Amino acid sequence: MNDSIKYVAITGGTHGNELTGVYLVKHWLSHPEEVKRDSFSTELHLTNPEAIKEVRRYIDQDLNRQFNIQDLKNLELKGCEQQRAKSLDALLGPKEKPRVDFIIDMHTTTANMGVSLIFNSSDPFVIEMAFYIKQKLPHATLFYSSSDRLEDNYLRSMGRFCGLVIEVGPIAQGLLNYQVYSDTHTAVMHALDYLEQRNKGQPLTLPKQMVGYQFIKKIPLPENAEGEIIAMVHPSLQNKDYHAIKPGDPLFITLAGETIVYEGEQTIYGAFINEAAYYDQNTGLSFMDKVTLSAPDCDV
Amino acid sequence: MNDSIKYVAITGGTHGNELTGVYLVKHWLSHPEEVKRDSFSTELHLTNPEAIKEVRRYIDQDLNRQFNIQDLKNLELKGCEQQRAKSLDALLGPKEKPRVDFIIDMHTTTANMGVSLIFNSSDPFVIEMAFYIKQKLPHATLFYSSSDRLEDNYLRSMGRFCGLVIEVGPIAQGLLNYQVYSDTHTAVMHALDYLEQRNKGQPLTLPKQMVGYQFIKKIPLPENAEGEIIAMVHPSLQNKDYHAIKPGDPLFITLAGETIVYEGEQTIYGAFINEAAYYDQNTGLSFMDKVTLSAPDCDV
Repeated sequence: MNDSIKYVAITGGTHGNELTGVYLVKHWLSHPEEVKRDSFSTELHLTNPEAIKEVRRYIDQDLNRQFNIQDLKNLELKGCEQQRAKSLDALLGPKEKPRVDFIIDMHTTTANMGVSLIFNSSDPFVIEMAFYIKQKLPHATLFYSSSDRLEDNYLRSMGRFCGLVIEVGPIAQGLLNYQVYSDTHTAVMHALDYLEQRNKGQPLTLPKQMVGYQFIKKIPLPENAEGEIIAMVHPSLQNKDYHAIKPGDPLFITLAGETIVYEGEQTIYGAFINEAAYYDQNTGLSFMDKVTLSAPDCDV
Repeated sequence: MNDSIKYVAITGGTHGNELTGVYLVKHWLSHPEEVKRDSFSTELHLTNPEAIKEVRRYIDQDLNRQFNIQDLKNLELKGCEQQRAKSLDALLGPKEKPRVDFIIDMHTTTANMGVSLIFNSSDPFVIEMAFYIKQKLPHATLFYSSSDRLEDNYLRSMGRFCGLVIEVGPIAQGLLNYQVYSDTHTAVMHALDYLEQRNKGQPLTLPKQMVGYQFIKKIPLPENAEGEIIAMVHPSLQNKDYHAIKPGDPLFITLAGETIVYEGEQTIYGAFINEAAYYDQNTGLSFMDKVTLSAPDCDV
């Protein structure tokens, strides 16, 4: 496959209450020189205008779960975001043979995940991009989850290469915070710089390996028979994204103050710890493995 | 006026996305012994069930602005929360001669306001209650704003005495955090204990004066001609609720990174700094005066 990058889309407002991406897109629309690079064309999109207007994550469905190939082709799916996904398929895709080469989708989280670079490995150069960004922004974290581009239901998968999610927190929904805004801005600049250098064939000096975290599964908040939450994240776990969780460590605390511990046998790591948006599924956190990621050209 | 307290209402979910109060009410409904006191009856209410169900601040209007006497009597006001306010008037009031003596309304904020005890002075014993709570919980802050009970549009004003708002943060909307939950729980316990001791005529040893903060006005976020936000809270002000803001200190930073300073001539103090719920009015923070509050029986 021709691997040069000609069209890059920077997207914000996929979740309408994550204002950082919305206001960065607005900022860049009036300062296009910041996202312009010589070797490719950059476009800016607010991807869920209805939800942005209402400052809600979504109107009918989470837009960022609507992009697998079957759902895009299913004309029975007529909710607000299901229709919006089809419009974005026309704008950026079509998914089987996309017009846009690469998507950088900006998100925020209420979890203390700092700058998390979320990507999958189906396109190895995305790992290299993530290494490049982390080299420039050492406090960033590599968050890896395996997926097939056509099956992936995230907006990032609508480009020719499966793109990058820049997820920054902690920040409340419906809010701007300069540190989060500035970190997101910086990460996007590095992503564009990487694509520019790659297109131009400029040599990069990157580590052969970097530590990252691989998604295992989501862990539910304890609930009662009626499906109501009866516990919350334990205070010793709150804000401890990417820290080790060992067997016997506290996970949750009930409304009455009783601690619930991790009963697994292996040390794992948490991410999306106490993400407000995941309360609709009663999800408390994600379990992650700590992994060593290798750059695609390495023999390791 | 007969000043003994017979009926106390603890209310949560006045804003449907402030989960702390919602889950404390649920907890106490199954653990009523925690809120039971000998000298008065305690009732628990989820005040905006529709908004709680949708995890939104409100459906049509902010419920916590619907309680002034004119609006309660205005039958033309038929929005979801305008009708809900009339139902609460029937449940707790009527406002001119309420059945309930005292309301404790639980709220959260995305601002770093810790435990803020928000009250007005029309009923002096509420100052004494706030002093009592702060004596037991020294990191609490006294937040005072003058209002007439009948004109007051907050739920707290629906009791015979103008009640207490317990406002705790920072926490994102739609989220539980054990520290916030626990602090709110503790503050409510002290409020109930105060009412119990007052009813029983038990002597209290309270300071004659305490420092508090008095609301002056809301300060808008800078916006463009279209009414869109073009700046956010400056990083040096973020999380600095109740700290001094001196002439020339940074207030805001534009999307392009330019600092906007405080141009007033007197030192003021900030509160509700970067409260997400106030973005609907493009409000960035409240200006406060630092004041010395005197207990009602003191001669100061």
